[in-house]
Amino acid sequence: MSILAVGTVAFDSIDTPFGSAERVLGGSASYLTLAARPFCEDVRLVGVVGHDFPDEYRQTLADGGVDLKGLEVDEDEKTFFWHGQYHYDMNERDTLDTQLNALASFEPEIPDSYLDSDIVCLGNLEPGIQRDVLDQVADPQYVIADTMNYWIESTPDSLRTTLSQVDCFVINDAEARELADEPNLVRAAGLIRDMGPETLIIKKGEHGALLFTDHSVFSAPAYPLEDIQDPTGAGDAFAGGLAGHLHRAGSLDRDALRRGVIYGSVIASFAVQRYGPDKLLDLTRTAITERARAFRELAAIPKLVPLEKQLA
Amino acid sequence: MSILAVGTVAFDSIDTPFGSAERVLGGSASYLTLAARPFCEDVRLVGVVGHDFPDEYRQTLADGGVDLKGLEVDEDEKTFFWHGQYHYDMNERDTLDTQLNALASFEPEIPDSYLDSDIVCLGNLEPGIQRDVLDQVADPQYVIADTMNYWIESTPDSLRTTLSQVDCFVINDAEARELADEPNLVRAAGLIRDMGPETLIIKKGEHGALLFTDHSVFSAPAYPLEDIQDPTGAGDAFAGGLAGHLHRAGSLDRDALRRGVIYGSVIASFAVQRYGPDKLLDLTRTAITERARAFRELAAIPKLVPLEKQLA
Repeated sequence: MSILAVGTVAFDSIDTPFGSAERVLGGSASYLTLAARPFCEDVRLVGVVGHDFPDEYRQTLADGGVDLKGLEVDEDEKTFFWHGQYHYDMNERDTLDTQLNALASFEPEIPDSYLDSDIVCLGNLEPGIQRDVLDQVADPQYVIADTMNYWIESTPDSLRTTLSQVDCFVINDAEARELADEPNLVRAAGLIRDMGPETLIIKKGEHGALLFTDHSVFSAPAYPLEDIQDPTGAGDAFAGGLAGHLHRAGSLDRDALRRGVIYGSVIASFAVQRYGPDKLLDLTRTAITERARAFRELAAIPKLVPLEKQLA
Repeated sequence: MSILAVGTVAFDSIDTPFGSAERVLGGSASYLTLAARPFCEDVRLVGVVGHDFPDEYRQTLADGGVDLKGLEVDEDEKTFFWHGQYHYDMNERDTLDTQLNALASFEPEIPDSYLDSDIVCLGNLEPGIQRDVLDQVADPQYVIADTMNYWIESTPDSLRTTLSQVDCFVINDAEARELADEPNLVRAAGLIRDMGPETLIIKKGEHGALLFTDHSVFSAPAYPLEDIQDPTGAGDAFAGGLAGHLHRAGSLDRDALRRGVIYGSVIASFAVQRYGPDKLLDLTRTAITERARAFRELAAIPKLVPLEKQLA
């Protein structure tokens, strides 16, 4: 049993009102794989870096137990670079610089040993490239995908085609409203599920996440953190934790999906506590279990006595 | 056992991208009292209207079972008027017009028969006027208060004095950040609770509510509504439902407060489904109980198996 994650491997430079970090390890594939690892022994990365990608960062991923056979090195290019600046409330950010570099000509080739992957996580990439991956993997049991506003605006038709091949779509609330062209999130969710994904998860940052399936809506809280160092990669860490739990549970039923959203939220809540994905490397299973229990306590609604019976 | 609510009684004109309504019954005291009524037989209103307040609206409140002995009529003035316009996403609004009218010279006089009130709800008013009410009521068991950004900015010291006399403070997330001068909501909550209120509830509109007490944080979801007609008064309906439940429960422990937040959310979710507070008049106890159950299902996290035990 195995998880394959395709996405970016990047240098991230992060500015916040409270500090900054330069050229830390980043990218959706880095976060996805490191987040899934606590739940799954066999996590496979597909991505590309340039000639300037340091051994140290490769070693970080390897130490995290990630299979790097699918990490291509483009000797003619530099590594994808992103520079972002977070606002005072850490909920919004501006992109100051994006250098695609090696990513511009990336055509993922899935190693033979990856072709039997059970769960495929499609990190934010051009929707056509996401489909290239699905075309190569023999018969994935479950496909989880992310996207971003750039693809919603520039390649809407290609995105729709990809969505028709996705089981679980994970986006943030602003993207959901934009993709559906509908301000009400509940209606937007219905419209997006009509595009293909049986399961839709809308991430709301500090407000938690909503899980929409055929038969229910689940509202997951966010962990009340006093110190957030770097929100970058939280969404990918969420998707990685979700994939990891679903893999481990061997189930896609209501309870497995709800637990998956919680474990995804748990991993994301750790990820934002440090610059880059470093915190994910230190995670113990005990720490994950304890924080997951804290989520249950945070959201626990005591049994309700029907109002009729309460009245004298 | 009784609940007293002081606040505005108003004409509200509402514009949304999807419709509008003119001069409907509004005001914090109207919403607070009508929201508390399903839980409590004895709900008392303190407020002021002008000579133009129609019998029809007085009858609406009376039909809702609200005690109107404390509703003063200022024959020299008109009734408080507010005109607001909601944005496309219904989460934000602009105030187009505010006419204080009778409210400008309002000095609440609490009728003798109200002086034994058990729970006092202080709707959004000048903080000094909120204290005038507390000075008159003999010995309330519990004081719930709201405010708005205007008082945070214009009368910060007076607001602090009021806060030192409040048990439960209910504000929205933007107001919490502004009052505490702290962007992180969890830290802001700690700073505000240091100002006096043992219990703080931060309302987040479509994202639910957070309850902060000495020993825990509770994250309540919002009900996933597809159709919101008029968000005006939702916060007051929330506080009224909360007060109503606490009154009925006769307890202020962890479970009572959590249930109170849920019942408050339930009543608020009904209130926004129609212009004005009309929907609150039609509420059956069965409808309230059913929606409260839906909240539990919405937030239910299945029992988690510790991660250690899951691993092969």
